[in-house]
Amino acid sequence: MVIYRNNFAFTGTDLENLLNEAAFLAARRGLKAITMPEIEEATIKVIIGTEKLSHKRTQKDKEITAYHEAGHAVTTYFLPSQDPVYQVSIIPRGMAAGFTMAMPVEDKQHMPKSEMLDSIEVLLSGRAAESIVFGDICTGASNDIERATETARNMVTKYGMSDELGPIAFGTGHDEVFLGKDYGNVRNYSETVAAKIDLEVEKIISNAYEKAITLLKGNISKLKDVAEYLIEHEKMDGDKFKEIMAEA
Amino acid sequence: MVIYRNNFAFTGTDLENLLNEAAFLAARRGLKAITMPEIEEATIKVIIGTEKLSHKRTQKDKEITAYHEAGHAVTTYFLPSQDPVYQVSIIPRGMAAGFTMAMPVEDKQHMPKSEMLDSIEVLLSGRAAESIVFGDICTGASNDIERATETARNMVTKYGMSDELGPIAFGTGHDEVFLGKDYGNVRNYSETVAAKIDLEVEKIISNAYEKAITLLKGNISKLKDVAEYLIEHEKMDGDKFKEIMAEA
Amino acid sequence: MVIYRNNFAFTGTDLENLLNEAAFLAARRGLKAITMPEIEEATIKVIIGTEKLSHKRTQKDKEITAYHEAGHAVTTYFLPSQDPVYQVSIIPRGMAAGFTMAMPVEDKQHMPKSEMLDSIEVLLSGRAAESIVFGDICTGASNDIERATETARNMVTKYGMSDELGPIAFGTGHDEVFLGKDYGNVRNYSETVAAKIDLEVEKIISNAYEKAITLLKGNISKLKDVAEYLIEHEKMDGDKFKEIMAEA
Amino acid sequence: MVIYRNNFAFTGTDLENLLNEAAFLAARRGLKAITMPEIEEATIKVIIGTEKLSHKRTQKDKEITAYHEAGHAVTTYFLPSQDPVYQVSIIPRGMAAGFTMAMPVEDKQHMPKSEMLDSIEVLLSGRAAESIVFGDICTGASNDIERATETARNMVTKYGMSDELGPIAFGTGHDEVFLGKDYGNVRNYSETVAAKIDLEVEKIISNAYEKAITLLKGNISKLKDVAEYLIEHEKMDGDKFKEIMAEA
Amino acid sequence: MVIYRNNFAFTGTDLENLLNEAAFLAARRGLKAITMPEIEEATIKVIIGTEKLSHKRTQKDKEITAYHEAGHAVTTYFLPSQDPVYQVSIIPRGMAAGFTMAMPVEDKQHMPKSEMLDSIEVLLSGRAAESIVFGDICTGASNDIERATETARNMVTKYGMSDELGPIAFGTGHDEVFLGKDYGNVRNYSETVAAKIDLEVEKIISNAYEKAITLLKGNISKLKDVAEYLIEHEKMDGDKFKEIMAEA
Amino acid sequence: MVIYRNNFAFTGTDLENLLNEAAFLAARRGLKAITMPEIEEATIKVIIGTEKLSHKRTQKDKEITAYHEAGHAVTTYFLPSQDPVYQVSIIPRGMAAGFTMAMPVEDKQHMPKSEMLDSIEVLLSGRAAESIVFGDICTGASNDIERATETARNMVTKYGMSDELGPIAFGTGHDEVFLGKDYGNVRNYSETVAAKIDLEVEKIISNAYEKAITLLKGNISKLKDVAEYLIEHEKMDGDKFKEIMAEA
Repeated sequence: MVIYRNNFAFTGTDLENLLNEAAFLAARRGLKAITMPEIEEATIKVIIGTEKLSHKRTQKDKEITAYHEAGHAVTTYFLPSQDPVYQVSIIPRGMAAGFTMAMPVEDKQHMPKSEMLDSIEVLLSGRAAESIVFGDICTGASNDIERATETARNMVTKYGMSDELGPIAFGTGHDEVFLGKDYGNVRNYSETVAAKIDLEVEKIISNAYEKAITLLKGNISKLKDVAEYLIEHEKMDGDKFKEIMAEA
Repeated sequence: MVIYRNNFAFTGTDLENLLNEAAFLAARRGLKAITMPEIEEATIKVIIGTEKLSHKRTQKDKEITAYHEAGHAVTTYFLPSQDPVYQVSIIPRGMAAGFTMAMPVEDKQHMPKSEMLDSIEVLLSGRAAESIVFGDICTGASNDIERATETARNMVTKYGMSDELGPIAFGTGHDEVFLGKDYGNVRNYSETVAAKIDLEVEKIISNAYEKAITLLKGNISKLKDVAEYLIEHEKMDGDKFKEIMAEA
Repeated sequence: MVIYRNNFAFTGTDLENLLNEAAFLAARRGLKAITMPEIEEATIKVIIGTEKLSHKRTQKDKEITAYHEAGHAVTTYFLPSQDPVYQVSIIPRGMAAGFTMAMPVEDKQHMPKSEMLDSIEVLLSGRAAESIVFGDICTGASNDIERATETARNMVTKYGMSDELGPIAFGTGHDEVFLGKDYGNVRNYSETVAAKIDLEVEKIISNAYEKAITLLKGNISKLKDVAEYLIEHEKMDGDKFKEIMAEA
Repeated sequence: MVIYRNNFAFTGTDLENLLNEAAFLAARRGLKAITMPEIEEATIKVIIGTEKLSHKRTQKDKEITAYHEAGHAVTTYFLPSQDPVYQVSIIPRGMAAGFTMAMPVEDKQHMPKSEMLDSIEVLLSGRAAESIVFGDICTGASNDIERATETARNMVTKYGMSDELGPIAFGTGHDEVFLGKDYGNVRNYSETVAAKIDLEVEKIISNAYEKAITLLKGNISKLKDVAEYLIEHEKMDGDKFKEIMAEA
Repeated sequence: MVIYRNNFAFTGTDLENLLNEAAFLAARRGLKAITMPEIEEATIKVIIGTEKLSHKRTQKDKEITAYHEAGHAVTTYFLPSQDPVYQVSIIPRGMAAGFTMAMPVEDKQHMPKSEMLDSIEVLLSGRAAESIVFGDICTGASNDIERATETARNMVTKYGMSDELGPIAFGTGHDEVFLGKDYGNVRNYSETVAAKIDLEVEKIISNAYEKAITLLKGNISKLKDVAEYLIEHEKMDGDKFKEIMAEA
Repeated sequence: MVIYRNNFAFTGTDLENLLNEAAFLAARRGLKAITMPEIEEATIKVIIGTEKLSHKRTQKDKEITAYHEAGHAVTTYFLPSQDPVYQVSIIPRGMAAGFTMAMPVEDKQHMPKSEMLDSIEVLLSGRAAESIVFGDICTGASNDIERATETARNMVTKYGMSDELGPIAFGTGHDEVFLGKDYGNVRNYSETVAAKIDLEVEKIISNAYEKAITLLKGNISKLKDVAEYLIEHEKMDGDKFKEIMAEA
């Protein structure tokens, strides 16, 4: 699972939980004030849940998760548009078997097309790593696939970023979840356009997946180094990750 | 009917029923504590209902059920990715004429594509056995067929496991049963893609069914041994099953 | 109209009506206990209503009904998979102009494909008889046609009994009538598959109808004997029916 | 507008209105009991409303209505399957500019295909008369057209009377107006079949319309006699109608 | 905007408003009773709202409105099936920039196809005038276009007036706005028929539009006379209009 | 983001907010009465929200926004049908990174086709500027794209402004958001027409986008002047804008 910090909208309750959690962590560490590390840790906890401490799992499961997350991390590293890797973990939390968290160095207002394509590549790189290393693919990538598809679809239908279809919006553009609005979401374009949209989405996804495969195959030893470290230590912070990637 | 223990989500009421049932069984057996056998028995009862003790049925019905369940069991045995057979029964319970229960030896986090294909083969092997032995097929396989189709469909549309369609999600991906969400489940892809999905699902299913037919034809004597034992004793535990399968 | 006793699910109220009716019949006949004949008679009354004693109708209407029901009965007789004819009546009851009732000799768990095809032939044989004898067809067959179509459709989409489409389930498989569920029943397959399903259903129906035509043309004198007996006596029990069919 | 007496289902309130109306008519006529004429008159009143006594209309409107109803009446006369004409009127009542009422001589249980085709011809014969006589067609035929289309559609989709599509039911067959049921009325057949149904309906309608045109052109003097009588007297009973038709 | 007096159904409240308005006008004019002129004036007020007395607008807007309404009026004048022009106004009222009102000389029961085609031509003649005079077209014609399309669609799908599709009704024919009914309004015909309907509607509209263009081009000086009078006086009654049209 | 003052309908609450805001501004400026400048400023605040005073953003984000808004402003300047630019701002407000506001010199009743095409060009010119200057395109243009598409779609389906489809209305034309009405918004035209509509919308959009690209490429130095002024001062009023555009 890939976590972009700015991908998540916090509700009032979420924020309260986050602050309580951070305060609790600071207290446990004997700090007089909450500092960034406590906030980051609390954020992860609120987003994907508490670590399952007493987790028992097969060695195979551990390896699959390690290579999957290593795939996300290594791909993120080599794509300059992406925020640096902040943490990688293969300790199960909530529904996730593991996660790779990237952290923006500064907040951005604009998301360019080129960066969206790179983020799709990152999302698909966990599946790509599984395929390269094990020759088999697992159900665990479904959240990545769903988000990659949604991003590609939005590029084509909402942000007018497909050369084929041009700067046109397809669908009603209303994202509201109110009952009445939902009814209105009847498709307002023809089958011909629906097929073109599918084709464009398919091109974006398959292109990104191939690029991820190529990138990881070309950096297979780095992928193994990161995965093996994870299998042994289960967690890796951004500095350790940079260190491994920087080794000759 | 095929039962995978981890296929069933238990509600609070289910768990209460399960524990009461297990406690009752332990008491009847003069045990001081509930042990695994009581839990397994109680689980079956909660999942598919109580045995219909006073059941009357035709010899033909009994034979059809025996060969159908033997088909599930024998196929499970020869596919290494599948959990070992724990119990086979042709005593009617609830809506089911019989069942084959597999029991995982350890919990797994990841479900690979190869294992999903094998589980589809197992689900279709009851129907395959009917077809081979009687040259006719019955309505009893509808639950197997529905689950096999759902698995194949998820592989293609949710887990991106079809080479033809690639790592793309189709549909909204929301499984929630809330009214409002359901309305939103309007198909968001074109007829062209819908036809490709159907074709991929069809390929997975027909391939798995053919493999089941081939496997059972190649092990027809084992199929008969298991079925005949079931016709005589109506029930078979995992050890007895392994014994029959291991005989020269 | 064709009545299969096991086709009807009884509600609590139905059962109460049935028992009261049977008790009333037993009392009128001076019996000390309800016996099977009272139960059968009460069943018919609950399923399709009371005989319209003061019915006035044209001779033409009587003849059409007689040949229609004779068609059902004679076809049932020549198809070994079908339960024996228990009663035929052309006395109007409720919405039905007449009925043919088959009665199972023992309860069966499994319904094979071959038996479903035969039952479709029986359902269509009333229409077939009209067509052969009068060269015209009537609206009265609509219930038969609807049930034949539903059976054929279930064979193809629910029981995976079409060679063309294989052991795949189409549609959601949920038959529940809850509002929320109904919304979910959006067709989840492509036009291509929808057209294949229609073609398979059409093949099953037209094949069964042709077989019914052939069967009845080959037994036209039996058809006439049964119909003429019905025109004269309006009702016929299973023994009388067997007697007529057995005559040289 | 064509009225078939048995086309209308009466509610409790309708029946009460009808009897009160008939009683009132009998009283006004000094009768001691309600007789058939009072019932017939009351029936018309309940079905299409009271005569608009103070109606003012153009001569052109009167002529159009007269030829339209004469078309219905003359066609009914020449089709032996149709009930005899009981009354023709061009006095506006409720929404109708005029009506032709046929009255069955005896109640029939069965409606054959041949009779349904004839009734479609009768329904379209008002429009046919307009077209022949005025060379223009009017909006007043919309109720006739809707009922003719519904009959043709039912022949094809509910009564299995199309040779092309055979004895298959299309659609759910549920006519209930309950909210929940209506949702379920999603089209359950393919575009291919939908197009075939449309074609069959179109064939039935265009064939019937052409027959009506031919019949009326061949009896143009009778059409004129009936229409002219109506223009002069506004109303015509069955006996007068038969008299005009029987004239050499 | 074109107003046909009989196009509007009045509610109880509308009638009350109309009568109060007419009474007020009669009083202001020192009349003892309400006369037709007061009723007509009150009718316009109720249908499209009060004149915006303090309206400020550009000269261009005034010219566009004047030529648009002159187009409606002149076309109405030359089509004998149309009721005579009663009033033309370019004073903004409610949502309308101007209006042309026709007044029937007598009430008609029947609306022939030829008259419906003429009324579509009238509805499109405002747009036609804009196009001829300014070489550009404006949003103000959307109400005319919607009503012309609805009339053409009804001719084809409800009144069976298309030679191509014949006397068949398409759609459910229910115009009721009840919630439950609306759900039932699922399209009950095939894509093939839908495309034919679209083609027929398109033919009717484009034919009527071309006829309007030809008619106005052939009477361009009359169009200018009427428009210029409107630009100067903002309002024109039926007599003044007839006078201008009758000038050599 | 492009703001046309007359594009926004104010609710009662909006008006109250606007007047309070204007009164507050007038008071702060020591004025005795609210004047136009206070109203304009209050309008912007109510429409897109308060300036985010303490905004931190990357230099890149600032440049993207500046060129995007400069694109809108410069295109508006060169299209005579468009109202003059009143204000340009790259200070984030609410959801918008910046805005360009045009102000009508007089209110118009009629919106001609030519003006609608120009307004689509203006809406797409922000995206066009991004593409020319950075060779990449961003998500920020989605509101512009949605409004351009909606305008083009209305031209084709509501205002009958496409030569290909003619003066026909497609869809129900009801824009009301009431639940019941929304259900009725089922597409009432065929796939063939849907594809034609898509093609026409596509032509309008791609044509307008190409014109915007050409216009901005031909005025690239003006685009840079305006953008650079915005990067330095963040805001620009209509007079300053005219001054820059007028420089040799």
